[in-house]
Amino acid sequence: MEKIRTAIVGYGNIGRYALEALRLAPDMECAGLVRRDASKNGFPELADIDVVSDIRELGKVDVAILATPSRKVEENALKYLSMGISTVDSFDIHSQIWELRSTLDSAAREHSAASIISAGWDPGSDSIVRALLSGLAPDGQSYTNFGPGRSMGHTVVVKSKSGVKDALSLTLPAGKGVHNRLVYVVLEDGAEYEQVRDAICSDPYFSSDKTEVKAVESIDPYNSMNHGVNIVREGSSGITANQFFEFNMKINNPALTGQVLVMSARAVTRQRPGCYTMIEVPVIDFLPGNRETLIRSLV
Amino acid sequence: MEKIRTAIVGYGNIGRYALEALRLAPDMECAGLVRRDASKNGFPELADIDVVSDIRELGKVDVAILATPSRKVEENALKYLSMGISTVDSFDIHSQIWELRSTLDSAAREHSAASIISAGWDPGSDSIVRALLSGLAPDGQSYTNFGPGRSMGHTVVVKSKSGVKDALSLTLPAGKGVHNRLVYVVLEDGAEYEQVRDAICSDPYFSSDKTEVKAVESIDPYNSMNHGVNIVREGSSGITANQFFEFNMKINNPALTGQVLVMSARAVTRQRPGCYTMIEVPVIDFLPGNRETLIRSLV
Repeated sequence: MEKIRTAIVGYGNIGRYALEALRLAPDMECAGLVRRDASKNGFPELADIDVVSDIRELGKVDVAILATPSRKVEENALKYLSMGISTVDSFDIHSQIWELRSTLDSAAREHSAASIISAGWDPGSDSIVRALLSGLAPDGQSYTNFGPGRSMGHTVVVKSKSGVKDALSLTLPAGKGVHNRLVYVVLEDGAEYEQVRDAICSDPYFSSDKTEVKAVESIDPYNSMNHGVNIVREGSSGITANQFFEFNMKINNPALTGQVLVMSARAVTRQRPGCYTMIEVPVIDFLPGNRETLIRSLV
Repeated sequence: MEKIRTAIVGYGNIGRYALEALRLAPDMECAGLVRRDASKNGFPELADIDVVSDIRELGKVDVAILATPSRKVEENALKYLSMGISTVDSFDIHSQIWELRSTLDSAAREHSAASIISAGWDPGSDSIVRALLSGLAPDGQSYTNFGPGRSMGHTVVVKSKSGVKDALSLTLPAGKGVHNRLVYVVLEDGAEYEQVRDAICSDPYFSSDKTEVKAVESIDPYNSMNHGVNIVREGSSGITANQFFEFNMKINNPALTGQVLVMSARAVTRQRPGCYTMIEVPVIDFLPGNRETLIRSLV
């Protein structure tokens, strides 16, 4: 069986965990790593990995895993799709997913490649759960409760405030889709706590949530990769009310994202040209192994 | 928009709930009901429904929902597929799903129709959850815990024992995929409790589970359509251990089965000719509405 030759673009947290997951995938192999700075310095785990600054140095590549920030996804995806290389990413700006899908869909079809976007855990695997549950109880309410865990977006906003040297914003689930915020800040010398707190709490990112701001010496003791989700669907199947569904997870955040990217890199090779979100891909396509074995063991 | 003309074959519990769900599906319409005895006697809710003994009396039918016992599924599916009518069923004999899929796949392709089999909640929607979780943590353990709820299979076995007039077998989850059995029996006149209990407990259906048998005057006070499931996956994403996932539901059993059949009847019209289990169908295909709206609201 020919293995799926998969390159990883970017080597931050997500890229690192994606490489770990890729090494364990029985039907895939790492074609190499693409970084602006094509160096392995400081990364002993890359001894056996080709690190390049241009993907064309890696020979045939079936799929590129874009382990880059969301704002770089479109540019990178278009570049690789135009080379006929399929792509997967964990683009997480919910409001722009449809537009990204439209743009990449044309590019992918033009170059006979495929792309799976927003392949993380939310958006991503959670989206599959939400879609399934909305089918099982078509009339009702869904609540997605995040955390406790670090919110990258909120952390970036806090760090942008004047007087803040370092920060960490945690998302705390308060139930029924409501979230509280717990913000740790390291103040710059001379900065006033009250001023910083008010600047944070009045920012649109925080103003509608209950927010607590704590000044600390260092964020390190509060920082971890823990995250979680609780998705609840309460509704009716047909006219029968009181159907209850719940999905919970407690996970290492980048480890799960890396795994979802790798399983999506497998799935993308099985799609016809075009761009897909995870809810548009049969779940079986994400899994290694043959169809009969999977159906016998999972259905 | 042309609605999906859907017939229901059989009018037991599942057929009744499927009809309720079908009436609420915005993109589907009930073409009619097929019963051996084409009568509406005793079913006032069928006043506006065509009831026939031969599906050809219903004009154009896109999909037949087979709300029949599992052992009748193959025969019925082959009959309707040969007429070019797609089928869905909730065939629930796990060990025979692959064989049924192979048989129906040839028939469906030959007649340019499609079939989704084992479209209930387990097998069915639970299968989608199990498949997704095995992708999110490829190395680990999954546990499917059923109940509390009535087990039809076990109830039938108890009823077959001599001395038993009526029976109800409940499945009680004991955790980690282990199940206990609580059996209510109404004894025939002159039957001895100890003999009946021993016959039940030594039957292969019960002998490996902790089983309690209670003799009662009537099963009615203990009988309901409640059921539930708890699926747990504990494993590693990449090399990162301690990833935890859990899916729970508490549901009216036939109401959920009816809803899954209806959403699968929608999905089957979107598949190419062939036979599929639910894990082989993109989740979005089960849902009404256009792709952009679904992706914007669910991903």
